[in-house]
Amino acid sequence: MQSYVHSLQDTICTAIEAEDGGARFHEDRWDRPGGGGGQARVIAEGKVFEKGGVNVSAVFGELPAKLAEKMGVDRADFFATGISLVLHPFSPRVPTVHANYRYFEMSNGDAWFGGGADLTPYIADPWDAGHFHSALKGACDPFGTELYPRYKKWCDEYFFIRHRGEARGVGGLFYDYLRGTPEEMEGLFAFQQSVGDAFLPAYLPIVERHADEPFTEREKKFQLLRRGRYVEFNLVYDRGTTFGLETQGRTESILMSLPPVVNFDYCAPMETDESEATLMGWLREPREWAEGVNAKF
Amino acid sequence: MQSYVHSLQDTICTAIEAEDGGARFHEDRWDRPGGGGGQARVIAEGKVFEKGGVNVSAVFGELPAKLAEKMGVDRADFFATGISLVLHPFSPRVPTVHANYRYFEMSNGDAWFGGGADLTPYIADPWDAGHFHSALKGACDPFGTELYPRYKKWCDEYFFIRHRGEARGVGGLFYDYLRGTPEEMEGLFAFQQSVGDAFLPAYLPIVERHADEPFTEREKKFQLLRRGRYVEFNLVYDRGTTFGLETQGRTESILMSLPPVVNFDYCAPMETDESEATLMGWLREPREWAEGVNAKF
Repeated sequence: MQSYVHSLQDTICTAIEAEDGGARFHEDRWDRPGGGGGQARVIAEGKVFEKGGVNVSAVFGELPAKLAEKMGVDRADFFATGISLVLHPFSPRVPTVHANYRYFEMSNGDAWFGGGADLTPYIADPWDAGHFHSALKGACDPFGTELYPRYKKWCDEYFFIRHRGEARGVGGLFYDYLRGTPEEMEGLFAFQQSVGDAFLPAYLPIVERHADEPFTEREKKFQLLRRGRYVEFNLVYDRGTTFGLETQGRTESILMSLPPVVNFDYCAPMETDESEATLMGWLREPREWAEGVNAKF
Repeated sequence: MQSYVHSLQDTICTAIEAEDGGARFHEDRWDRPGGGGGQARVIAEGKVFEKGGVNVSAVFGELPAKLAEKMGVDRADFFATGISLVLHPFSPRVPTVHANYRYFEMSNGDAWFGGGADLTPYIADPWDAGHFHSALKGACDPFGTELYPRYKKWCDEYFFIRHRGEARGVGGLFYDYLRGTPEEMEGLFAFQQSVGDAFLPAYLPIVERHADEPFTEREKKFQLLRRGRYVEFNLVYDRGTTFGLETQGRTESILMSLPPVVNFDYCAPMETDESEATLMGWLREPREWAEGVNAKF
């Protein structure tokens, strides 16, 4: 898994740089005092991507007390590795994307995979959501057709901003605690690679479709306001973020996910035209997007 | 107390409008389904104040389950009233300010006052911090000279962004659960009014001192980055915010505190000149500001 996330980091960064055509990723290596470390790769002020990070880490040592408590163990050693990425395009026509693929194991033998990917658009384009979900479904289906619907629903439930009554975006996949026998773990690792490899084909065609489109001042304003909601979700609800901060993770890597420029207006109108109203409807009531699940929208 | 917070809202809004000389407050009245409601007064895009809110509320009814659990009671009715304000000036030379004065009582007879005020500057001006703290100390001292040091320390501890190892600003006062016999409650109410009345004389001279100063592009950028830290504190740590969101408070009133325009940069440099380095030193290690406490800085 550690080798896979490094290779995925290289593949994704190369493809994103090529797509951007302007900025390059810069790498920061960091060490964790208790054991292990990571490589944060960050892109900023590109032609397409205003801010983004594709981070990998492999950390180990004694399980932090707060994590041990959460896991219901007295004390244990652990090993964790994963890749986590967020890309914030400048243009409101191009959706923000987040993905994360991770593996965790403890010295008591317990081990599991977790991860997912989700899309946060600022315009109501059903093709984008349909393509993203269909690509992820295609990566899940060989491992069981029950997986996509299950992890799609989990994603809708997880990325929900309760105090707003809205999802963060149009969802994707979310799964955690995927465990099993050693043979089953091999299958789960294959699944993890399949959905990890699906990230670029799920996202890049959406970027290509919209990167050169002109946009209005209001579309940009709407994006800055929706980015405010993104911040609200990440800082109030996202377990990776809040738990990372609590357990003294590397703050700059954890908060790399926050958008570069954000607006918080009082009682901001969020449905000033049909595209906004349609998108807000999708966020309030998550729907089926993948081809073959419900083709009618 | 309910009558006092309404009168304080009028006084503060009138003075802030006069200071701004441009924008006016707009009022939204709202009802709480379970009982009571509030008046949110919001100012936006003024000459001095880019965004601000001065909100009062008086709510009552059955104690929400989460709150009852926190209070360690089975069920109870409650009444709560207070004023809460945040002002975000456009100029980085003028500090952001927050204040809150509140009263809470339960049908089991328990009742208490809480509140405080704190200053978040973006330039290192010792006069500003000294004046703000001295004014608050002056309002506390008639009620016991032990109060200012106690509530100043509580403020430093409360408004601390643990994952950054920095305070949100240069502090002020924070106090909660001030309770006593009926006679003592009268004294506490007098204290509450004294510190509430001290808000304008503590803050306005600082605004007047800096409102017309020119500022650099970097000072503005530094403010936008520090506003990011303000968001991090409010959404991750502030109990009023997180508990308000959890207990289905009025989202727009709760999040009125967030700055209008915010930057989140990866590994942003925060000490590019002497003023920034000095200010960051104050935030990492809170110090004494009030006259007569430690005059040497």
